[in-house]
Amino acid sequence: MRDAKRSESASLWRSAEDLSRVRCAKRESVLRVAVELFNERGFVASSLDEVAARLGVTKPTIYHYFKTKEDILVEGVRQGMATLQPLLNAETQGTGFERVRRFLHQYAEQAATPFMRCVNRTDEYELSEPNRSNFLKLKRSVDHAIQEMFVAGIEDGSITRDVDPKIATFAVIGALNGISRWFKPNGEMSASAVKTEMVDFLLRSMVP
Amino acid sequence: MRDAKRSESASLWRSAEDLSRVRCAKRESVLRVAVELFNERGFVASSLDEVAARLGVTKPTIYHYFKTKEDILVEGVRQGMATLQPLLNAETQGTGFERVRRFLHQYAEQAATPFMRCVNRTDEYELSEPNRSNFLKLKRSVDHAIQEMFVAGIEDGSITRDVDPKIATFAVIGALNGISRWFKPNGEMSASAVKTEMVDFLLRSMVP
Repeated sequence: MRDAKRSESASLWRSAEDLSRVRCAKRESVLRVAVELFNERGFVASSLDEVAARLGVTKPTIYHYFKTKEDILVEGVRQGMATLQPLLNAETQGTGFERVRRFLHQYAEQAATPFMRCVNRTDEYELSEPNRSNFLKLKRSVDHAIQEMFVAGIEDGSITRDVDPKIATFAVIGALNGISRWFKPNGEMSASAVKTEMVDFLLRSMVP
Repeated sequence: MRDAKRSESASLWRSAEDLSRVRCAKRESVLRVAVELFNERGFVASSLDEVAARLGVTKPTIYHYFKTKEDILVEGVRQGMATLQPLLNAETQGTGFERVRRFLHQYAEQAATPFMRCVNRTDEYELSEPNRSNFLKLKRSVDHAIQEMFVAGIEDGSITRDVDPKIATFAVIGALNGISRWFKPNGEMSASAVKTEMVDFLLRSMVP
């Protein structure tokens, strides 16, 4: 009783900064648990009731952080796509082949993370406008950045001229995104073995 | 008035075989139009009202052929997967590499067809049991058949030992299934150019 009183009075005196930090941490928990559920069951079959139950909170608590279930998906996709940005903006040093190789290794690393699985499992049709357009625009910017690496590699001779930059981009993205769909963290191959084998397979196609 | 009477009486005398043929043709139209809509908008956002409107029939007419929207999806997926069966059962003549090459060309051909697009766009979570289990079982049997071609190719020396059969299977399936997602029939590349370039890209990885 005394402890409860003390903690109540402590929370009354909690600084605005603390409250904001706690609020952000709670929002991140909602996001993380919801994204895990979307990845397990698919977005449509996931309910906010289940997210609330897993968090041990009530549904209104969730609405305190996100207005709709789609808002949570949009934030998950946004955070997933954001992890790709540094890979694309990375120093443009080295041959085109070296840039592609570096990018593929990093992309493969990301592909099994919850937020990238969320990006890869999300169908544009699950999003309403303007979220759908933004999602497609982000994806296109990733595609263009990869195509540009292939073009650079073909020009500097580090990638065979047999490669069509557009098709190669779709091939590597399709193969690596597949990891999000079929890879099971407790399966017979480790994430690192899958990543290395897959990237090596794709890179062999590019050798002049 | 007289014509209407005549046609009515003709239909009374229509043979059972004719009726059955007409019924099947109508069922196929429902399936085809529904699958086109699923491919355009995604399964969840597609309504049977819209399917009925596109067919110029009432919704109860659709229920005459399929009990639920999921039943239509299941039939679309079943017909899509069925088109793969002959490719897998095809004569096992030639080296492993030749079998893989033949399969990839045929698979790429199928990947842009409406029923295979339906298979590739369908998430297992959109199906309820036992449809989900059957869908996964069919997919696994395709994966195993392809892996087996890679194993044969590595054994007969037509495919490099650097290939891991499991990873190579997922890589080629991921890359080719991607065609179902991004290929636009009226885009800048023809279906046939996309198919050839993509298969060539993948085959280069397998050369010993």
